[in-house]
Amino acid sequence: MPTPVDIIQKKRLGKALNREEIEQFVRGCTDGSFADYQTAALLMAICINGMNAEETRDLTMAMAHSGDMLDLSSLSGPTVDKHSTGGVGDTTSLILVPLVAACGAKVAKMSGRGLGFTGGTLDKIESIPGANPAMEIDDFIRTVETIGCAIISQTGDLAPADKVLYALRDVTATVDSLPLIVSSILSKKLASGAQNIVLDVKSGSGALMETLEKSEELARMLVNIGNATGRHFCALVTDMNQPLGMNIGNALEVREAIEILAGKTGGALKEVSLDIGTHMLRLAGFDRPRERIEEALTSGAGLKKLAEMIEALGGDPRVCEDISLLPQAEKIIPVPAPESGWICSMTACDIGRASIALGAGRIQKSDKIDPAVGIIMTRRIGESIEKGEPVAFLHANPASDVESAKKLLLNAIRISKEPVETPPLVYAVIE
Amino acid sequence: MPTPVDIIQKKRLGKALNREEIEQFVRGCTDGSFADYQTAALLMAICINGMNAEETRDLTMAMAHSGDMLDLSSLSGPTVDKHSTGGVGDTTSLILVPLVAACGAKVAKMSGRGLGFTGGTLDKIESIPGANPAMEIDDFIRTVETIGCAIISQTGDLAPADKVLYALRDVTATVDSLPLIVSSILSKKLASGAQNIVLDVKSGSGALMETLEKSEELARMLVNIGNATGRHFCALVTDMNQPLGMNIGNALEVREAIEILAGKTGGALKEVSLDIGTHMLRLAGFDRPRERIEEALTSGAGLKKLAEMIEALGGDPRVCEDISLLPQAEKIIPVPAPESGWICSMTACDIGRASIALGAGRIQKSDKIDPAVGIIMTRRIGESIEKGEPVAFLHANPASDVESAKKLLLNAIRISKEPVETPPLVYAVIE
Repeated sequence: MPTPVDIIQKKRLGKALNREEIEQFVRGCTDGSFADYQTAALLMAICINGMNAEETRDLTMAMAHSGDMLDLSSLSGPTVDKHSTGGVGDTTSLILVPLVAACGAKVAKMSGRGLGFTGGTLDKIESIPGANPAMEIDDFIRTVETIGCAIISQTGDLAPADKVLYALRDVTATVDSLPLIVSSILSKKLASGAQNIVLDVKSGSGALMETLEKSEELARMLVNIGNATGRHFCALVTDMNQPLGMNIGNALEVREAIEILAGKTGGALKEVSLDIGTHMLRLAGFDRPRERIEEALTSGAGLKKLAEMIEALGGDPRVCEDISLLPQAEKIIPVPAPESGWICSMTACDIGRASIALGAGRIQKSDKIDPAVGIIMTRRIGESIEKGEPVAFLHANPASDVESAKKLLLNAIRISKEPVETPPLVYAVIE
Repeated sequence: MPTPVDIIQKKRLGKALNREEIEQFVRGCTDGSFADYQTAALLMAICINGMNAEETRDLTMAMAHSGDMLDLSSLSGPTVDKHSTGGVGDTTSLILVPLVAACGAKVAKMSGRGLGFTGGTLDKIESIPGANPAMEIDDFIRTVETIGCAIISQTGDLAPADKVLYALRDVTATVDSLPLIVSSILSKKLASGAQNIVLDVKSGSGALMETLEKSEELARMLVNIGNATGRHFCALVTDMNQPLGMNIGNALEVREAIEILAGKTGGALKEVSLDIGTHMLRLAGFDRPRERIEEALTSGAGLKKLAEMIEALGGDPRVCEDISLLPQAEKIIPVPAPESGWICSMTACDIGRASIALGAGRIQKSDKIDPAVGIIMTRRIGESIEKGEPVAFLHANPASDVESAKKLLLNAIRISKEPVETPPLVYAVIE
């Protein structure tokens, strides 16, 4: 068996690691036979010298198998999952999970918390009075079988190697590496058990990948490596140059999801959700996927499913009928547009940071979030505004740093004297 | 001030670090503000992406200044030091330090222990009955002023950053990196205080650098970076395709040094010592350096100086007159040549390993060594031998693994049916 130093040396010299070496590394970083500094050195060598498709697949599989592999085979319908690389105002999961379940697919979704300027689905669910996404695996699978879906927090034993590697990457400047990003995303999805997985790769100022080229490269690699593991993957590359929904903040995003499922509002969030949902149903083997997903929305079946899921998580399902039951911020502060014209840019990451200043997100893992606070935007890129009209409303509580939020928000928005084209919502579909 | 992640990221992207960043890193790896895994990640990035001459000089200076900088300015003569990159049967320090001191230079030498297949000067000195190279700095400088030279063990505060980095490099496959090798060697030499330093860069099977090209590259870089710090450096690239001296093992090497200083034997070790010594005197500003160093040898002044130094270290100076006072192994075992012909190769590292099997060296830092055991070679490359004639004598004690030593030794030696050219001793002098 090679030593850790042999394996590091091989990658340092730019050679491809074989499956046994990759498995030894992944085992080693969780059982301690690779010391942290050795793992860090190998991560840096991978970061600089790369990994080929076979290595990336082996790394993904080894990381997926580093803990429990959820077995969803007992479920009575096709299993489907989605994953977003994370964005601002990206509430698609809350809309899609019930919508797709209402069409007959089984959605057993494990989700994470928000960190940095992007929100986390768990935080949004926890903003619903009573809802608690911590659930034992048996209950989880029973719930998915009964009502068709559930979103719970990741268990401790799901891809533990990813937790070790992710924590180290964050502090060793090795986050930005395609094979490491791909294996991190895919390993968790594979361990979560679904057979059909749609990936939403965000592109733009509020995304992991800022350029379209890099986003497409990531999407292609995710789909190729994902399919090489034997599951069915596809990916959409979607815009994150501005927040996807109009609402940013936990209860506010739940509210927008409910309003969309209730047919009370539309817009980019709804359109992207329908696109992703169509591919989820298609991958899962449903015919007429677009019609089915639209029907589940217009019939109210999706909203009903959301209410059932909220109830299963111990939350108050009446929020789906009465959004005033969601936490409310004490003050709503309009942010007037500084000039007239057309919105030409809305840097999503800075709007995310503005919502953090209000208390809607975390900079450190230990930060507490305020479920009620956040931002409701009134415009998207390409829309016109008059000087003094509110471009957004801040939902603030006494602990919110309103001044910083306002400054960050206004800095994020550019207004042009000339009309501006509306950017596309979906750039590419990678099959 | 940048964070550790900023600094790692910069080098990961292949950019040059500035002096402040390098100083922050070197400070950080000793004070803990760079965690081990961050240091490891940066070492790997340096290893793969390299460092330019300015960065390497800054790293060298920062490492040198990470602990005490020995001040030799009170000494009444020019200060000179030498450093070998380490080889088998390389006893030049024991010969040169007294020889150069006998010519009027001041040699305050801090030395290390052997690890792996190369011997350490300290271990050799400790094989002399009573000699103890642990000395306080004040005594050290007083001794050098009085008798002209001393060799002591490195103090704990000399380039502590190098100790941290060296230990990490060893376990993260980041040893083989020119800027890291250069800064490690030079930082210790700079901290030791001498103004004039001759480097002996070994090349060949028993050296850090196996090819002549790589050895010359290292030598040039050492001299360039060394001179850029304001001290005077030169380097000789010398052969390590076979052991330099005929004796390998601690007391045996002391014996050969004494025999050379006493004019009783000659050969490669003597020639290379005279070459290095000439450059030491030249750098230190002496005219007619070659004549001076030869005179110090033939007059016996060098041997007298060695006796004085041994006495100053608490050892028995009579060993210089009577080598039988050195530790003796219980058995001397001839190793017969398996065939007749001309010696065409003697892989130095394997001969070093054979001496370790007898007990003369360490594999782990904590290994005990036996001062008496070792090998005396009878031939060098190009010399002829008859089948059955001893090619070497093993000096063994009961704990010695004679069988392994014999096997390693015979595997290391190749005998040709055709005459073989004698390889050069010195390949290049880099000024």
